[in-house]
Amino acid sequence: MSTIWTQARRAARMNPSIIREILKVTEKPGVLSMAGGLPSADTFPVDAIKAACDRVLTATPREALQYASSEGYAPLREWVAGRVASLGMKVKPEQVLITSGSQQGLDLVGKILCDAGAPVAVETPTYLGALQAFTPFEPLFASLASDEEGPRPEAIATLPHDAPGTRFAYLLPNYQNPTGRVMGAPRRVEVVEALRKANVPFVEDNPYGDLWFDEPPPAALSSLWPEGSLYLGSFSKVLTPGFRLGYVIAPPELYPKLLQAKQAADLHTPGFNQRVVHEVVKDGFLDSHVPTIRSLYKANRDAMAEALQAHLPRGCEWQLPQGGMFFWVRLPAGLDAMALLPRAVDAGIAYVPGAAFYAHQPDPRTLRLSFVTLTPDLIREGVEKLGRLLHEALEPVAEHAP
Amino acid sequence: MSTIWTQARRAARMNPSIIREILKVTEKPGVLSMAGGLPSADTFPVDAIKAACDRVLTATPREALQYASSEGYAPLREWVAGRVASLGMKVKPEQVLITSGSQQGLDLVGKILCDAGAPVAVETPTYLGALQAFTPFEPLFASLASDEEGPRPEAIATLPHDAPGTRFAYLLPNYQNPTGRVMGAPRRVEVVEALRKANVPFVEDNPYGDLWFDEPPPAALSSLWPEGSLYLGSFSKVLTPGFRLGYVIAPPELYPKLLQAKQAADLHTPGFNQRVVHEVVKDGFLDSHVPTIRSLYKANRDAMAEALQAHLPRGCEWQLPQGGMFFWVRLPAGLDAMALLPRAVDAGIAYVPGAAFYAHQPDPRTLRLSFVTLTPDLIREGVEKLGRLLHEALEPVAEHAP
Repeated sequence: MSTIWTQARRAARMNPSIIREILKVTEKPGVLSMAGGLPSADTFPVDAIKAACDRVLTATPREALQYASSEGYAPLREWVAGRVASLGMKVKPEQVLITSGSQQGLDLVGKILCDAGAPVAVETPTYLGALQAFTPFEPLFASLASDEEGPRPEAIATLPHDAPGTRFAYLLPNYQNPTGRVMGAPRRVEVVEALRKANVPFVEDNPYGDLWFDEPPPAALSSLWPEGSLYLGSFSKVLTPGFRLGYVIAPPELYPKLLQAKQAADLHTPGFNQRVVHEVVKDGFLDSHVPTIRSLYKANRDAMAEALQAHLPRGCEWQLPQGGMFFWVRLPAGLDAMALLPRAVDAGIAYVPGAAFYAHQPDPRTLRLSFVTLTPDLIREGVEKLGRLLHEALEPVAEHAP
Repeated sequence: MSTIWTQARRAARMNPSIIREILKVTEKPGVLSMAGGLPSADTFPVDAIKAACDRVLTATPREALQYASSEGYAPLREWVAGRVASLGMKVKPEQVLITSGSQQGLDLVGKILCDAGAPVAVETPTYLGALQAFTPFEPLFASLASDEEGPRPEAIATLPHDAPGTRFAYLLPNYQNPTGRVMGAPRRVEVVEALRKANVPFVEDNPYGDLWFDEPPPAALSSLWPEGSLYLGSFSKVLTPGFRLGYVIAPPELYPKLLQAKQAADLHTPGFNQRVVHEVVKDGFLDSHVPTIRSLYKANRDAMAEALQAHLPRGCEWQLPQGGMFFWVRLPAGLDAMALLPRAVDAGIAYVPGAAFYAHQPDPRTLRLSFVTLTPDLIREGVEKLGRLLHEALEPVAEHAP
């Protein structure tokens, strides 16, 4: 107990990111890490960014280096509004708020919508970073029963909708982190219909939607109920995470409050970064660039799928992800992914135990494997080691004697 | 009332930035604006930044464009720890958290230290952006009686220190925004002594400390009570605000919680921006660059001082700022700076009414004038127009007839 400082009540609820703590442990030299959620640095368009930096600092240095508007750089907001039209969304540039990564979008959403004790519905499991962003605002998480397509519509019907009613449902329909699952078109209609009936609006988080392998995902949930949705997008997975650029698309009634929260949080997102990214994307660069990411990631996905099939013991379960960055594996009964992690690191591999991604009752048998950080050869080597570890963990030690 | 969305209780307390709203009104073509708090774009070291962008993207593109640590770029944290030694502070790099501008530092401080109804002491007047950053966390502001050096020590002795005790005092000892005042060395000792006695820690915000004109300000308040202080610094006024780079220096007991708040808020500050700024500053660039800003601003300050003397009616009061960016003017009794603003804009000038900077009982006679945005010639023209407006406001209209 400090004798000088008194911390806020909410601070007691905040915890270090389990993933970041795990990443520190697993960042030993020689460890094949399938733990991180980092996009492949091979996909960063360094030359295009370098040229754009130069153009911005030559053409508009004073504007790019000065304070800028809290809403974001107008041409980039226009670009975003145009971009999401391909997802079925009809959006005006005035509805776009540029944020410092989509993680900031989650923080701002929590700030303007969460009250202590008011329910927020989340998928089972869900993105850990969202749990962390909302937690300081002390919501009561309600875990929606979910299957291989995401939350089940009947689970939504049972949400608390009396005061304090459920403030929103937080949904990741495309190649969800951590499960990699995608919500099919019929399920999207059912889910949004159930939310409408329950009068529960939703926050749609879509960092991975562009990373599809065979066919694009169905239209955005937000296209089905525009006035009942907030939509979060990001440049981190299609361009670079190092610029920290994301955006929130808000219905007109929420936009002003979100903007006030943004002003209070950091005045504005770096104008320089916004101009550079706009300079890179404005003439269709992503149309040629994103397919190169897709094909790289798809080859990696295939390598991991094959390796999992070849090396994981009977009783392990996983879905083939149709996009994104992750496999989600469920181990046979009796195994605990968290308990096994130290042995995995000793064996030279790392993953993220799935328990971190649950708001309630974690499934200790789950783990998340990224297929975008290692090369196919290293993926095969890593999964082979994982398989060996799991076989050992399942069999009596004596059987391994020669 | 929305039938879909329910906003958080704290959202009702949040308001649009009055300054940003005023800036919108005053951004008419032809208006000489002394309203903004923007540093002069003439001071941005465009060539140095351009060269640094190029070096970073040539030498370490993959690292600069990838996700990075929440604490910040290690070499920049080391540089900051070394830099503040000149302010009398003994700081380890592990105490430095890089933030997305020092505004984000205020948000994070509010998040981990403010509870609904718990007092936070502020100067009279104080920085509006801090009031905005803390307000969502629902503190009870306590306005400290202040004079031309800042808060009075005897005002601190009367702060509430029983539960819920005053969480911290928010202090700007150097060329404060909005008043331009600086706290002398003896006052610093008295203030910190009073805070220690009252067991009230403090948050020291120092965006303007480098912008002194004749002699540097006394040692930082934080040097006098390191374990009872959080210190906020910024690159916005000495390099560029467009990169949104600031930092918080925290005692070891608070650092982990601040870091968790940072992770939840935006994962990390753009690694690219941190590396570019480090590349610019690492070899002593500021030692030659900051003096050029000082001499530019000092010449502007002198021009405004002379013009105020020449044109403002008897009964106006102001101090000569020894650094920073602002004059703080108190109008003669009977005048209201907010009420006069529309006439000022019609007359082709703009300022910020001082009322926005008070947590309680605003003084309607005050206004803030920036001397760093206009050239000396335009400052003279602007102040002359202000003087004419004030003379007119003070005298019966009839006297102006030819």
